[in-house]
Amino acid sequence: MYDQSPFKSDFAVFSHPDNTELCYLDSAATCLTPKVVAEAMYQYQSFSHANSHKGLYRLSASATERVEQARVSVAEFIGADADELVFTFGTTEAINLVANSFVRPRLSADKNIVISCAEHHANLLPWQRLCQQTGAELRVASLTPQGLLDVAELAALLDDNTCFIAISHISNVLGGLNPVEQVCRLARQQSIPVLIDGAQAVSHGPVDVKHLDCDFYAFSGHKLYGPAGCGVLFARADCIEVMEPDTLGGGIVEQVTLTETRFIDGPMKFEPGSHNVAAICGLVAAIDYIRGIGWPALVAYMDELSVYLHQQLGDLPFIKPLIPGASGAWLCSFQCQGVHSHDVAGMLDGDDIAVRAGHHCAQPLHHYLGLKSSVRVSLGLYNGREDIDRLVASLKHTYQLLAAD
Amino acid sequence: MYDQSPFKSDFAVFSHPDNTELCYLDSAATCLTPKVVAEAMYQYQSFSHANSHKGLYRLSASATERVEQARVSVAEFIGADADELVFTFGTTEAINLVANSFVRPRLSADKNIVISCAEHHANLLPWQRLCQQTGAELRVASLTPQGLLDVAELAALLDDNTCFIAISHISNVLGGLNPVEQVCRLARQQSIPVLIDGAQAVSHGPVDVKHLDCDFYAFSGHKLYGPAGCGVLFARADCIEVMEPDTLGGGIVEQVTLTETRFIDGPMKFEPGSHNVAAICGLVAAIDYIRGIGWPALVAYMDELSVYLHQQLGDLPFIKPLIPGASGAWLCSFQCQGVHSHDVAGMLDGDDIAVRAGHHCAQPLHHYLGLKSSVRVSLGLYNGREDIDRLVASLKHTYQLLAAD
Repeated sequence: MYDQSPFKSDFAVFSHPDNTELCYLDSAATCLTPKVVAEAMYQYQSFSHANSHKGLYRLSASATERVEQARVSVAEFIGADADELVFTFGTTEAINLVANSFVRPRLSADKNIVISCAEHHANLLPWQRLCQQTGAELRVASLTPQGLLDVAELAALLDDNTCFIAISHISNVLGGLNPVEQVCRLARQQSIPVLIDGAQAVSHGPVDVKHLDCDFYAFSGHKLYGPAGCGVLFARADCIEVMEPDTLGGGIVEQVTLTETRFIDGPMKFEPGSHNVAAICGLVAAIDYIRGIGWPALVAYMDELSVYLHQQLGDLPFIKPLIPGASGAWLCSFQCQGVHSHDVAGMLDGDDIAVRAGHHCAQPLHHYLGLKSSVRVSLGLYNGREDIDRLVASLKHTYQLLAAD
Repeated sequence: MYDQSPFKSDFAVFSHPDNTELCYLDSAATCLTPKVVAEAMYQYQSFSHANSHKGLYRLSASATERVEQARVSVAEFIGADADELVFTFGTTEAINLVANSFVRPRLSADKNIVISCAEHHANLLPWQRLCQQTGAELRVASLTPQGLLDVAELAALLDDNTCFIAISHISNVLGGLNPVEQVCRLARQQSIPVLIDGAQAVSHGPVDVKHLDCDFYAFSGHKLYGPAGCGVLFARADCIEVMEPDTLGGGIVEQVTLTETRFIDGPMKFEPGSHNVAAICGLVAAIDYIRGIGWPALVAYMDELSVYLHQQLGDLPFIKPLIPGASGAWLCSFQCQGVHSHDVAGMLDGDDIAVRAGHHCAQPLHHYLGLKSSVRVSLGLYNGREDIDRLVASLKHTYQLLAAD
């Protein structure tokens, strides 16, 4: 195992004089971006910026081609067809789109939606509101002792009135890989559409939406070593066909009169206004970067580093992981005995170690675990053993200094 | 007057070997961006990229500060207070937000919404759908012979049941400055809230939303020499207060349980998920660039160039402007006698002149004018007399070659 990540030099941020001591352990919030991403965005923004899909001229046609080539490339990356791939501004918009355009018209007071108690607010609030508005029931599956979605319990929640299932592939707090294949199989048997929130999982190994057999899969570029401002929604072609656009504007219509509008077909009907082409270029560069490393090498590196993280934290008796004994995750959320999570993060920041403290946009999960907040340490490709060693040293120091006796 | 724009060298695109002959006349769709914009985005993405508003650590706090300083800077730019300024992903999202969160709860079958027949689809479709859903009436004011909003007619459409007015500050096809102050005054007298679609106007001179006394003002960064993926909604503080969030996700809540959510106050409740900080940095750089030139110098330059455009096109008898005799606009939409608009654009593209052909996301306006499409030429700071001369030469050539006898 490397003390310093062999990938670290791919990331410009660490070469900046301000950041030579930066220990970044918040990749589950946002991954830092490799040089190739900022470079691709810069090249586009400087020399090729134009409105895509609307002009006949060279510069616009080239922007259109970038977006459509990106659609093919990103679709391939997750095993989808290009005509099933919608560019959004992030996971949040993607999930809201499905809630508003697909689920809302199918929901009524006698129906129910099934989620888990570990969902990020982005995959909870849209369903909660739909249920409040229609009188439908929000059913919530809990977790196994290992912190994974309890499929047996979820199965028991399904009935003829279950209208939709929305679950995360990996919880942003717990980090374990949920058995989403099983959920999709169960759902398909009962003809219940499924959305997978893939925000965390898409950087954790190859995703194949056809193999998963899900109806919707959502993720964001900035959790995949790409920029913010670009998200992706995979939606099965037959779902796209029956969905009406949610956000309305230019570029999504066949014909408009003052009284009537006929929308275009295909994923572009969900992409009104101007594409964020710079961010889309950045996302493609990020995917190419990952392809260059290759999933086997990437996963092997991250898995090995994660084992070290869990071992080292496991050796600290004052560190209490949210799910004791769980491993395999590329992150660890914990409490530090006798020290408030925000104080832990503040102390670590003093050593230029970036971790997240709080409820991580998953308040109900913390409530389920009987907690108000936690510290989350999450790994990225740029991290090496040195980062974990510094984290451990700083945690020890924090505990010695702040723990209530 | 300059033959070549004194600002042209600020824009990297023209120094690229592919673009030395580029004559870009589609700024009403997307402005090219000055070097400082791509540079600001690159610096952020390379060295300072992080999740804003959620981390306690240095890099995240710095991203938060960038967003909040941007909020102050952009607010100042349009005469607003920072707590009235919402960052969206574009004008389209901004208008949809107002439609869904402010107007929908106030609308019923007995009410009406007033727009003009010259609206961009982004400022038509959301209102059309609301009216279809609720049975409310969509009332449409027409234009003066000069191609401006007919305020007298609009005034006659208002009554006690008028729930909302939504009009563009400048039409993206006609280019003239609509008398929005008068509309806002009328509306205020009758307590009718007003949204101004400022997508075109915000680059055309100083906007002061407090002086205008509008309730909402929406625009996009990429029509202000900034990047795509960043838009702005000004909303009066009392409007923000009564509006519920539309898109739901992380970062916009005080407290969440599985059954209930309490949202935060202020503009951030409309900004779920991760901010597009790179684009926000780019927008600030664009605004600083404009401030550096100064509005008086910018407007004087563009006004003079526009006069030349209208003069030169006016000398071509086969060019038929949509509104004959109208001037003052920084763009001109026209038909070329005997040649289809798309063929005109195609021919111009052969000379590396970028113009837009089609309905410009304003089909009802074209219908109102008895047309199906037009050619639109729109100016930016990088344009000089040389561009207009080349346009005229290419139009002459096109007409000679293609016009039906």
